[in-house]
Amino acid sequence: MKSKFIVIEGLEGAGKTTARDVVVNQLRELGVEEIVFTREPGGTPLAEKLRDLFKRGVDHDKPTVKAEVLMLYAARVQLVETVILPALARGAWVVGDRHDLSSQAYQGGGRGIDPELMRSLRDISLGDFRPDLTLYLDLPPEIGLQRASARGELDRIEKEALPFFERTRARYLSLVAEDSRIKTIDASQPLAQVTASIQQTLSHWFAEQQGQAQ
Amino acid sequence: MKSKFIVIEGLEGAGKTTARDVVVNQLRELGVEEIVFTREPGGTPLAEKLRDLFKRGVDHDKPTVKAEVLMLYAARVQLVETVILPALARGAWVVGDRHDLSSQAYQGGGRGIDPELMRSLRDISLGDFRPDLTLYLDLPPEIGLQRASARGELDRIEKEALPFFERTRARYLSLVAEDSRIKTIDASQPLAQVTASIQQTLSHWFAEQQGQAQ
Repeated sequence: MKSKFIVIEGLEGAGKTTARDVVVNQLRELGVEEIVFTREPGGTPLAEKLRDLFKRGVDHDKPTVKAEVLMLYAARVQLVETVILPALARGAWVVGDRHDLSSQAYQGGGRGIDPELMRSLRDISLGDFRPDLTLYLDLPPEIGLQRASARGELDRIEKEALPFFERTRARYLSLVAEDSRIKTIDASQPLAQVTASIQQTLSHWFAEQQGQAQ
Repeated sequence: MKSKFIVIEGLEGAGKTTARDVVVNQLRELGVEEIVFTREPGGTPLAEKLRDLFKRGVDHDKPTVKAEVLMLYAARVQLVETVILPALARGAWVVGDRHDLSSQAYQGGGRGIDPELMRSLRDISLGDFRPDLTLYLDLPPEIGLQRASARGELDRIEKEALPFFERTRARYLSLVAEDSRIKTIDASQPLAQVTASIQQTLSHWFAEQQGQAQ
């Protein structure tokens, strides 16, 4: 099977790390040798620096909403062009903790940037490059925030009010409905069931891919 | 007269600093009290940091052509939203050493990024915000490079081969032809004549603006 780019998406506390472990175990079972992990925003020295800059700004100069989104795309382009595409080209699989769908949902939904503008920016930045599979871990934001809070992991974005995350989830759901390469996992279930859902979704998808490759 | 944003554009060695002095003198004569100077890319702490990052990269991680252009627009949006628009709103005039036309010409012409893509990126980033007047100092690149070289001022971009600057100039000229708010100055003339041309262009433009304001 040709190597692929699999992305895990969802609100804070949705269980992305657990989902990644499930993906990695199944890839190992399939005999995949090289797996490259990415985390967005970030993932290259330049992209991590950009992540740091748009979280903190420089002195009192914090990025405006639009400057932030442009920095986000600069970081993503750098990661795609210098890490993800070369990895796929040499036959490695790439497993991403977040990718473009996060920007569409958080900036286009949560922050209220015009979704058409977000779509144009994605097309300008990435052309038609898309993950082969995205697992979107869906859950009500109040549950995710409780989980993230229990881990002591709330940063600037996570401290936004609940309505921000409701808008973000609504945008996720509307984008998921448009794209058959995004699979929704009900992440509000107990952990064992979430894991089972992911395993099932992946097995089904791998079987499909192998069928297509023949 | 309402305050305006005047930009000086042109290849390296075209005489932008001299042109700026001429603009400032005429603004003073008109009784303008506050003039804000901008230099792009840069002009805010965050934008200067972005400038530094895309000139140097981080360790061996240099920005790709597309990441560079997104960082350039992040810096520009930050400057426009946090410096230029507030200055204009309080009645200050803004005089810019380069602005968007440079990106259209250098990235869209010199570096060969699709000009349509550059245009879309400008519209996404800046909406319909444009300088009120742009003075484009036109000259053959070999003359500009000789002048810049004599001042010991050649940096990474300036060390690009001559064809890069020829493509950049060609793009400048084609954009100038599309927009009546851009005035071309023949910068290959002797200095005194360049100065006189700028003075004349400005006087004419100021008279026009005052006519419109009545």
